[in-house]
Amino acid sequence: MNLLLLEPAEIASGSPVTVRGERARHLREVLRVVPGQAVRAGVIDGPLGAVTVVEVHPDRVQLDARTLAGAPVPERCRVDLLLAMPRPKVFARLLSAIASVGVGQVWITGATRVERYYFDCHQLEPGEIRRHLLDGLEQARDTRLPEVTVHRSLGQLLEGLLPAAATRLVADLDPSLPRVAQACPAQGRVIVAIGPEGGWVDAERALLARHGFLAVGLGGRVLPSDVACLVALGLVHDALRR
Amino acid sequence: MNLLLLEPAEIASGSPVTVRGERARHLREVLRVVPGQAVRAGVIDGPLGAVTVVEVHPDRVQLDARTLAGAPVPERCRVDLLLAMPRPKVFARLLSAIASVGVGQVWITGATRVERYYFDCHQLEPGEIRRHLLDGLEQARDTRLPEVTVHRSLGQLLEGLLPAAATRLVADLDPSLPRVAQACPAQGRVIVAIGPEGGWVDAERALLARHGFLAVGLGGRVLPSDVACLVALGLVHDALRR
Repeated sequence: MNLLLLEPAEIASGSPVTVRGERARHLREVLRVVPGQAVRAGVIDGPLGAVTVVEVHPDRVQLDARTLAGAPVPERCRVDLLLAMPRPKVFARLLSAIASVGVGQVWITGATRVERYYFDCHQLEPGEIRRHLLDGLEQARDTRLPEVTVHRSLGQLLEGLLPAAATRLVADLDPSLPRVAQACPAQGRVIVAIGPEGGWVDAERALLARHGFLAVGLGGRVLPSDVACLVALGLVHDALRR
Repeated sequence: MNLLLLEPAEIASGSPVTVRGERARHLREVLRVVPGQAVRAGVIDGPLGAVTVVEVHPDRVQLDARTLAGAPVPERCRVDLLLAMPRPKVFARLLSAIASVGVGQVWITGATRVERYYFDCHQLEPGEIRRHLLDGLEQARDTRLPEVTVHRSLGQLLEGLLPAAATRLVADLDPSLPRVAQACPAQGRVIVAIGPEGGWVDAERALLARHGFLAVGLGGRVLPSDVACLVALGLVHDALRR
């Protein structure tokens, strides 16, 4: 945990703020905080700054969070992700990883090569998704919680839900395709689409192309979808830094 | 499994080659092979091509592997990895991921922020390492097994073991540092160093700098070391494709 994340409601209730449970344990046992110490902290979807430790108790830690109110709110990531639902165990792990690398909106979608029972898994419950995303934000020192929505039909998702003003890329294997850096814009948002294990079927490729997704090459190797996802997000972020 | 990998000894014993166990199960139940069918296959550290199914039995599959003998051997990856030992569970998962992304040599090292007991874990047994690497090669359709060696001391590793003729990069957070693409050479090998959770300590950074490692920025976010490893390897591979 590189950042103590507070809920907006915890800040709203006035200072000092009391944290308990896992966050208090981490402050006491890992960071070994003492009264007067400043701790890097933020409010979910709000400012990022520091709080001051007031009191340390066996079951709770009291913090002065008044300085946080005036701190800047990080910008939302310019990269969005359209992700064919991976195996549920992989999905849970991947959520915190993509939140650490940085992502704005995530659309989880079904696909021909996605097993239908994946959509019944507990890893897709909103509380579980949020928990894994917060892990990633605490790691990366960001407060902006990615929005995650779940769609069983790629066709319906593409028809209705994607914002128009974004560069759309779909990761592919073919090394003769343009590289991510060549396809990324100087400004504006980028959506990157990552297929399921075994890839999109031809009809899905055609559908993505009709909706403006440009195929970009990650290299000639067949990557597992979670690895492809992290590599592609890394390449887009790097291209946007130019 | 996108590639059937055979041991050199299996090929040496002459044709037809008989596979059993997990590989036979995969051929029968997932690929549903029939006699006469060609299957993408390779020999570990040898040629990559196809074999022909001869006979399918409940417990084994017989293959004609003669065509494999004349097939080309993939080039060894130009990217090497110096990796501070991660938590053992993360390490096992990461091995197959880095073998899929592609890596030539891997030096696992101790560091101030690496727990010493990590080096006693079963995940570092050669058989375990090999098993995870083969998973990654089967995924990526590569036959070249990365070489993995384990070193408790970063200082001794740097003194003696690294090949001289390689560009040396160490991944860092500072967004003002050069990007990977700016630091990668047009030719020759690249070694990328990835620190432990919490990063290298100052003395280790200085040691790496003295041994020619140039700090490159992955972006301003604090990534878990396994995610940093995949993002960095992805960036180096992408830079080498130019």
